[in-house]
Order: sequence, then structure tokens, then C-alpha cells
Amino acid sequence: MNIDDLLAYAKAKGFFWPSAEIYGSTGGILDYGHLGALLKRRFENLWIRYFVDSGDEYHLIDGSSILPEKALVASGHASRFNDVLVGCSKCHTYYRADVLLTDSGIKVSEGATTQEIDNDIKGHNVVCPKDKGALLPSKAFNMMIDVNLGPDKTDKAYLRPETAQSAYLNFFREFNSLRKTLPLGLALIGKAYRNEISPRQGLYRMRELTQAELQIFFDPSTWKPDTGEFKDVKMNVVPYSTKKMESSTQGELVSRYNIPEFYAYHMAYIHNFYTKVIGVPEEKFRFLEKGGDEKAFYNKVHMDIEIDIASWNGFKEVGGLHYRGDYDLTCHTKGSNQDLSVSIDGKRIMPNVLELSFGVDRNVWMLIDVFYKKDGERTVLGIPHVLAPYKIAVFPLQKDEAINKKVDDIYKELKKTYKVVTDTSGSIGRRYARMDDIGTPYCITVDFDTVDSNSQNYGSVTVRDRNTKEQERIKEEDLFDYFADHL
Amino acid sequence: MNIDDLLAYAKAKGFFWPSAEIYGSTGGILDYGHLGALLKRRFENLWIRYFVDSGDEYHLIDGSSILPEKALVASGHASRFNDVLVGCSKCHTYYRADVLLTDSGIKVSEGATTQEIDNDIKGHNVVCPKDKGALLPSKAFNMMIDVNLGPDKTDKAYLRPETAQSAYLNFFREFNSLRKTLPLGLALIGKAYRNEISPRQGLYRMRELTQAELQIFFDPSTWKPDTGEFKDVKMNVVPYSTKKMESSTQGELVSRYNIPEFYAYHMAYIHNFYTKVIGVPEEKFRFLEKGGDEKAFYNKVHMDIEIDIASWNGFKEVGGLHYRGDYDLTCHTKGSNQDLSVSIDGKRIMPNVLELSFGVDRNVWMLIDVFYKKDGERTVLGIPHVLAPYKIAVFPLQKDEAINKKVDDIYKELKKTYKVVTDTSGSIGRRYARMDDIGTPYCITVDFDTVDSNSQNYGSVTVRDRNTKEQERIKEEDLFDYFADHL
Repeated sequence: MNIDDLLAYAKAKGFFWPSAEIYGSTGGILDYGHLGALLKRRFENLWIRYFVDSGDEYHLIDGSSILPEKALVASGHASRFNDVLVGCSKCHTYYRADVLLTDSGIKVSEGATTQEIDNDIKGHNVVCPKDKGALLPSKAFNMMIDVNLGPDKTDKAYLRPETAQSAYLNFFREFNSLRKTLPLGLALIGKAYRNEISPRQGLYRMRELTQAELQIFFDPSTWKPDTGEFKDVKMNVVPYSTKKMESSTQGELVSRYNIPEFYAYHMAYIHNFYTKVIGVPEEKFRFLEKGGDEKAFYNKVHMDIEIDIASWNGFKEVGGLHYRGDYDLTCHTKGSNQDLSVSIDGKRIMPNVLELSFGVDRNVWMLIDVFYKKDGERTVLGIPHVLAPYKIAVFPLQKDEAINKKVDDIYKELKKTYKVVTDTSGSIGRRYARMDDIGTPYCITVDFDTVDSNSQNYGSVTVRDRNTKEQERIKEEDLFDYFADHL
Repeated sequence: MNIDDLLAYAKAKGFFWPSAEIYGSTGGILDYGHLGALLKRRFENLWIRYFVDSGDEYHLIDGSSILPEKALVASGHASRFNDVLVGCSKCHTYYRADVLLTDSGIKVSEGATTQEIDNDIKGHNVVCPKDKGALLPSKAFNMMIDVNLGPDKTDKAYLRPETAQSAYLNFFREFNSLRKTLPLGLALIGKAYRNEISPRQGLYRMRELTQAELQIFFDPSTWKPDTGEFKDVKMNVVPYSTKKMESSTQGELVSRYNIPEFYAYHMAYIHNFYTKVIGVPEEKFRFLEKGGDEKAFYNKVHMDIEIDIASWNGFKEVGGLHYRGDYDLTCHTKGSNQDLSVSIDGKRIMPNVLELSFGVDRNVWMLIDVFYKKDGERTVLGIPHVLAPYKIAVFPLQKDEAINKKVDDIYKELKKTYKVVTDTSGSIGRRYARMDDIGTPYCITVDFDTVDSNSQNYGSVTVRDRNTKEQERIKEEDLFDYFADHL
């Protein structure tokens, strides 16, 4: 599917669409419908189980999205969370300078100044793509969305640009209300906000987005997680130094590219999440190392987690692994005048941070892109069972009172444990097709035999498997065990 | 506990505290720590199971918190979501007029105009409580928080003041992507934002709050839910007409106070949620009917759901049940020029809305207030098992390698299914006390007998019940069944 196909599918089935559509909507802001909200929650729950519940001292917390100005001045966002914009002197359309230059085939470095941008524009005679108007001098534009509170609206605050800040701001209290040990992990799933100038279609650049982030606070001199797991697993990495994709183990990354052991281990842990737990094909997964002026100056090591997403034309970032050193707690110590260093075994240290960051919306998009497939005549959203919005559908094969009652009984019984749906409209083939199309792993069909005490199939139903298309007769009383095994 | 005790408890244990505390924090904005985030999620999940999963055509969706100005002009919020403020001419402190007058013992009606407020202030010689300064003329103050998007920040939008609007804005698309039938329920759990002028302590009046709301769209001429369930259950209601608390069944409410059947049934359904599912004592629960100028003009019937919350000095609103007629879809039909009426069996109708609205933060506060008890020497957070943040704690009784290993084995095994915690510090009595204090239903203790093959208690552990304080010896292999029965 291309981007328009995927959006059309998402709209028609109930996954997502532009927010406030009936008012023409605002770019970069989306709503999730009944299937999308289920898929998003299932991804979030899987993420929590895999990343948060795995660590004995990792905890999910929940922080506000409005943060006071002081906190974002201290974090550096107020001065540095900028895009460079250029406006057209004729039509007054604004563009992100890096997007405009890249689209014109000119390479721009991540932190390019307005001066460098202006030189590039002059040097390459770049003009407004709409009306060929001359471009005005570029300007730095802060991407945070500001809000003003209080009766005079003089209490300046911002919508947080990343959930990470909530973890840093709460570190001190959580450290003290927990065991006062490191490593300590604080995870958040929540909204972040950015005044994107060119929000593009399809959940990639959004103004209101959901992030799932785990911040691990640790002492770099003592943290030695057991890196044995996935020791020999190879993963695709594009190192900054060579820019050539290679397949490496943790150990190879440590020795050849000077990446800390704990960092390489977390790469393997993330790689396992995508390729084994979710089942993204190996060749569609890679880490892209950022270095030099591509990465934020405070990151000691920075890898984007990228997946080959056909509707976005290739490898695109769905998350990142960032070794941020002690930048964050040092900033907030200075900004708040509260010493955020901690005492461990009599030694005073400023904890370092390893950040595992994921864009939930991008991952939802990715799941549909990677797992939606044509299989002969049919289309199947072949996502793993754990992520499927509906787990089971129950159909009556014929219109019949006894059949309907049985459908209702089975539906009510299974509903206690699974998300179940019924569908009575159209042929049974069309109903299977509709369930394949939204990824429902199992369909149950009740027919005359099920309710006919003279039939040898009395009391049994047909269960059809989405992946194999195979059907088998299962006794009603065995359904629960069947799904306990299969789901 | 009074309000300060409860806040101190919440902070110390890891439930909640002011957001961005290290920067002095902003009034009315809170963060949830590791225990609070668990308690909040468990309340939300219980709410979803009870209110959303109960209806075959009820669905959870997820909508953006930024909404375009047009949508909130159409809904009436831009013109009417106001508080009346009065400022002091000397110290320039602002007050909500209704709060100031009520605190001075003067009764104010819900929709009082600035003129009426000014008359009350003059009539009763009300002055600034801080410095006795004269009060300036009152002014209407819109409580929505506005945000400005785009490169010129000229795209005006608001943070939604209630999640309900996201359901109304998505009704049309969901109706069409689902079965095109009524009733249709759209539920959201998410943030809402209000520029409260006098945010008070303790999650009651918040600037950033979480709501759980179910909007049921229905045809009033045909919707007859089966009201048989809870038919004879009596519930506490304070009707607008008499202002006297009485105990009534659904049927009595319908006949004596002219409340629609579907409305009275949903009162009973909500009453059951609080008094039976959660276990709030009957006498602490009531509905308060709003009428006349107390209720919003578009509500046909409006009841607050109130619980007697000691730390808030009596009955306080934790939710509401609102029969909103066709106000919402009519507003958005006018505002968007898109006809939101639907065709059912050839008849064109504008769906009516029944809103079940809950403040999640207030409910979290309520749970601690109602269930935190002194029991002799000990303090117990006696919340229902389903809401307990941690389900099971596992302790080693002595410091011993074999015991520690067994604790670790049991911990890892139970962790697959339950939220489990370990604690090794202090006496076993102190550890029980800590778990009672945060509501953990079961504590498992491993002792020398557990790991001594010569003991008759070899292979068994002590399980202690939070509620009864009773301890029993359970074989390790029976633990899973034990908790499957008890949790």
C-alpha cells in the first residue's frame, strides 16, 4: 500500500483519521477509532510487558503534559528545540528549511544555523516551490507549543515536547520513595506536542503524538547488566563511521565501534522485540547510528531504530536508543537549584541516563504497513495474535433461532476472556474476508449441525484460522482450552 | 485523614504529588508515581470492563486533546465555558467570584452573571480576604486553555475542556464504519484541560485532569434497555425538587420524579459499580440532582455522582450522569455544515446523548480516602483486590542463600501473571505493615522450613491475607491455584 491506500484503509476500517475532520481538521493531529484504539493499547501493553515489567526496578509513572517554563529552559528546549524556517516573500508560505533544501537535493546537517541555511539558499538559487518567489532570510522557530495559565495568562508554560522530561523531573522523588538504588527505570506512555510546520500525512510528523519511553538511571562505573542473552544474535546496524549496513553481534559492536556493553545489549534487546516478539522480518529492521553533527550534542551514543516501511518509501525511524550521559539531571540540578545527584554506598554520583524511546503512532502505522498483505484473492492483516484488535469472531452460518442463540451463548462466554465480535451480514466468505482484513486470528461458525442432536457434529463448531485458512471442528466445551493454547 | 495527611501519604508512598515539584510546581497539575500510576490504570481498566465492554456496541476510541477553535465555538465552550472572576484593586489577586461569595456565606447560582455577582459583592460589602482591598468589577473569564499553531501561530486551537467533544466529533465516522445502528457508545479515557483560577489541593479542581467518559448515542423513541437488572435495588438520591436525601428504586424515580426509564436504569448501573464492584459503603454514595439554574441548560436530566469523602469534608462529585438530548450533534451540525443526523429504518433522526462522565483523578483520591483505615495498631489501604497496585509480596524470613533463591523463583513465577514485589528490609512485621499500608492483598513468606527437606513444612510457604491478617501454610505448587481463586 502507498500512503494514500493505507490512510484510506485506516479510515474505512476504523483505525485512525484526521482529528476534527468535520471542521476540516488540523494537520498533524489524529484520532483513533475503535480498531485503532485497540491496536494502540495492545502495542502499549506489549511494550510495558517487554520493556518495563522486565526490570525489577523499572516502573511506569504518569506525568503531566503541561510543564512550567523554567523546566524547559533548564532542559535546553526553550533555546534549542528549534527548526529553521524560511518564508516566501510573495505568498508568505513557510517551509522547514531542511525539508525544502533536502527536497531540492541539497544536503543539510542536523544543527545547521540560519546563516548556513541562507548561504545554501543563495548558493543554489532555491526559490519558493509554489510561486517561485524569492525566499526571505531564514529564522529559528521554537517548536514547543506554549500555554499561558492563570487569570492574567502570565504563568508561562509549555506542552512537553517529549515524555522524557516527566521522568527526569520525577527521578528524585521516585528514587527516594523506592529503594534508593540504581539502576532505576522510569517509563511513561503519554502525549508529547510539537508545533510542526510541515506535518506530513500518515502519522510520521505529528503535532500531538504518543510516546512510550523508558529512562534508565544508572551509575556508569558499576552498571553491568547480564549481556549474555542474545549474545550471538546478529542485527543490522549502519555505523556512523562506515555508513554501510552490516550484521553484528553485541560483542562486535563493542569491540569495533567503541559502544558500551550495556548499550549493545539494549540494542539486542530492542532487536529481539521487533524481530522475534512482533515478527518484523530481519531485513526490514536496522539501527542507524547518528554521529558528528547529526546527533544531539549531549548524546554519547545515539542510534535510531528504523524499519523499512513501504508506504513511507524505505527505512524510517520508529524509535531510538540514546545514551544521554548525565546531561539531563545536571541540567535540572542547575535549573532547579536542587541537587539531583544521589548517594550510593557512600559515593555521590550524578546518574547517567539510557533512553529507550518509541513513537507509538509510528509503530501503529508500521504494524499495518509491514503486516498487511495480499494472499491470492484475499487481503490479510497478519499481525501477531497478541496485537490483533479482535481475537475471535463468532458467526451464525444460517438464519435460525437455535443457531442465533448458540452464537449468543458462545459470544457471551468467550467475551469474558477475549475481545470477541459477531457479524451476521453477507455470505460466510465475505465475513471471513472482513475478519482477515482487520487481522482477527480466529472465526467460529455455528451451523445446523451444531444445534442438531441427530448430527454427528452436534455440539461442535467450525473454527477457522486466519493464517492457514484451515477449518476444524471443535467441541463447544473444548473452545476455551483451544483458545488458551492458540491465543 | 485530612487533606494534608492524604497528600503526605500519597507523596511518601509513591501515589502522586505536584508536577515539576523541583521547580516549585504549578497549581492544579499533578504527576502519578509508580503506585499511583498502577492504581489509576487499574481503575481505568475496571471502568472499561464495567462500562464499555458491557455494551456490544460500545467502543473505546482515542481522540486528540488539541481541537480547532471552530469546534469549540460550535459546542458553545468558546462563549459559555466561563468563570466569573473578581480582582482586588490593591493586591491584584484574582478570585473565582462563586468561591469567594460562597466562602463569605453568600449563595450563588451556577450561571450567575457579572451583574448579579457585582450586586452581591456590593450588597454584602465583600472585600479582598487578603488585604481588605475593594474588589474591582467582575469579569467573565473563559476557562479553556488556548494554543496557537503554525509558523505565525495564527491557527487558533484549544486544549479540549472535556473528552466528550472527541466522541461527538467522531460520531459520524464511527457510526458509518460500524453497524449504522443505535444505540452506539463511544468511550474515551484521556486528558482534559481547564485554566482553573483557584486550583485547590488534592486533585479536586485540576488544570490538567483525566476523564473517563462514555457517550451513548440513541434514538429516544425506541431505546428501551432491559431495566430489569437491579430493579429492586434502592439507591440514595437527593432530588432537586425536595432537596431531601431518600432511598429509591429505579421505578420510584421514574414515577415520582419524571426521569426516563433508561436514565434511572443507568443510575442503578452506576450505583452498582460503586457500592458492589468497588465496595463503597451505601451510606457514602448518593446522586445529587441538579435542576433550575444549577444545571447546564442543554441537560434534560443531570445528576452528580457524589461520594462522602472525609478529606474533602463531605459529599463531593466524582462523576455525573447527563441526559444531553440532541444538543451536541445539533451544535456540530450547525457549526460544521455537515448533517450529523442518521437514518435508521428509513427514519431520519438526530441521535440523543446519555453521558456517563467520571473524573479519574477524583476517583483515585476517593479510593484512598474511603479505603484507608486504621485497624488497631496498623493502617490498611483496604481497596478491592482488583484495584490493588501490587497483588502479592514475597519475603525471605531469614537471610539465607537457599531462602533467597526460593524467594526469587516464586517471585519470577508469579510475576508472569501478577504484579509482585519483594521486600527484604526490616522485621517481617514491618514488611507486613508496609504492604498493608499500600493495600497489597497477599504476602508470601519463605522460611527455613520451606527449604529444609527434613521439615514437615518442606516445600510450603506462609501466605498472609491483608484483610484477615490470617496466615496459612500453602504448598508451593498450589500457589498458582490459590491466587487464581483469591485474586
